[in-house]
Amino acid sequence: MKKVAVVLSGNGVFDGSEIHEATLTLYAIVKNGGIYEIFAPDIDQHHVINHITGEPMTQKRNVLVESARIARGKIKNLADFKAADFDALIFPGGFGVAKNLCTYAFDGVNCKVNKDVEKAIVSMHSAKKPIGALCISPVLLAKVLGAINITIGMDKNTAGDIKNLGAMHTETNHGEIVIDKMNKIVTTPCYMLNATIAQIGDGANNLVKAVFDFV
Amino acid sequence: MKKVAVVLSGNGVFDGSEIHEATLTLYAIVKNGGIYEIFAPDIDQHHVINHITGEPMTQKRNVLVESARIARGKIKNLADFKAADFDALIFPGGFGVAKNLCTYAFDGVNCKVNKDVEKAIVSMHSAKKPIGALCISPVLLAKVLGAINITIGMDKNTAGDIKNLGAMHTETNHGEIVIDKMNKIVTTPCYMLNATIAQIGDGANNLVKAVFDFV
Repeated sequence: MKKVAVVLSGNGVFDGSEIHEATLTLYAIVKNGGIYEIFAPDIDQHHVINHITGEPMTQKRNVLVESARIARGKIKNLADFKAADFDALIFPGGFGVAKNLCTYAFDGVNCKVNKDVEKAIVSMHSAKKPIGALCISPVLLAKVLGAINITIGMDKNTAGDIKNLGAMHTETNHGEIVIDKMNKIVTTPCYMLNATIAQIGDGANNLVKAVFDFV
Repeated sequence: MKKVAVVLSGNGVFDGSEIHEATLTLYAIVKNGGIYEIFAPDIDQHHVINHITGEPMTQKRNVLVESARIARGKIKNLADFKAADFDALIFPGGFGVAKNLCTYAFDGVNCKVNKDVEKAIVSMHSAKKPIGALCISPVLLAKVLGAINITIGMDKNTAGDIKNLGAMHTETNHGEIVIDKMNKIVTTPCYMLNATIAQIGDGANNLVKAVFDFV
């Protein structure tokens, strides 16, 4: 059984993990014969967004505790992640990736990456194990790994940032993936395009299949 | 295009909508050629549960605002639901159904049902339009409609309550559905059984297909 670590960044597109991308990634892992464990960093969210108004709320919420909602309570602190225990690592998208896992939403290419997130990416890459990233998450991989080939769809500003981080950007449309064979990295745009939930399912499924081809 | 209203009860299995069931219901609707609008009542959650510890938190959260996370912000107040605008109505599961949409988790067969939820169910049923319910949601339909044939899987206590509400219970296993042809009601157990996320996908897909057969 191929064993995948999935890293979440909260629970909701505007301040955490994008819920459809996270759920359909877990679904694709199991449908393609794998199993998963879910991780998140034990840190406060950058902020809490009311998903109707788009405005910040006064509450504080914790990334690990909120991610546990998607995980149905079965979740581990990302600080305890060990590359040796897994065949692959996957990051679903959502603004939480750019607000909680790193600070790209605020600092662009000068963003800082959470140290547990960086360690997870570097340790898997060093072990020559595959990494998948959906939506905005490929930017996180570019920041940490530099010279890789990835996609975030068609957004020219983000693609420009990716090039400034020393990575290569390939344009893609709904459900398409980019495979960097040398670095064993698979990426797909998902909701970086104006997608339907069915197209998210296609992207997640194509990504998981390509990740499993490396295992 | 078959147009489905999906009613959520929050965002997280222990105090709101079960996220996998909600997401995979939306996915099945679109994969089978339909479109959806998402609704939730504008009320406070009964409580907020830390999904790691299972303990209540001191925060207050609103069912409509938290459900908007699953809906990516595109959600309507259930008070504004009109049966004439939709071909079908579907309730994903999660404890939120039994804590926020009705009080079954606390009051059993003597539970009270939220008035907007009751109005939505009664108006669709009166219009002879199909209703689908996953997981624990069939209990809500039994409370409102009485003499219907439904399933919540194999749990004997809940099945007993369903009979005490004047409904009929049929045992089912993973992914299976029960179709009450006369009442146009389709139900499936999902996480009322110890299921994988792939089995949730099967149940949601089988349910949506059977609901669409009535449209």
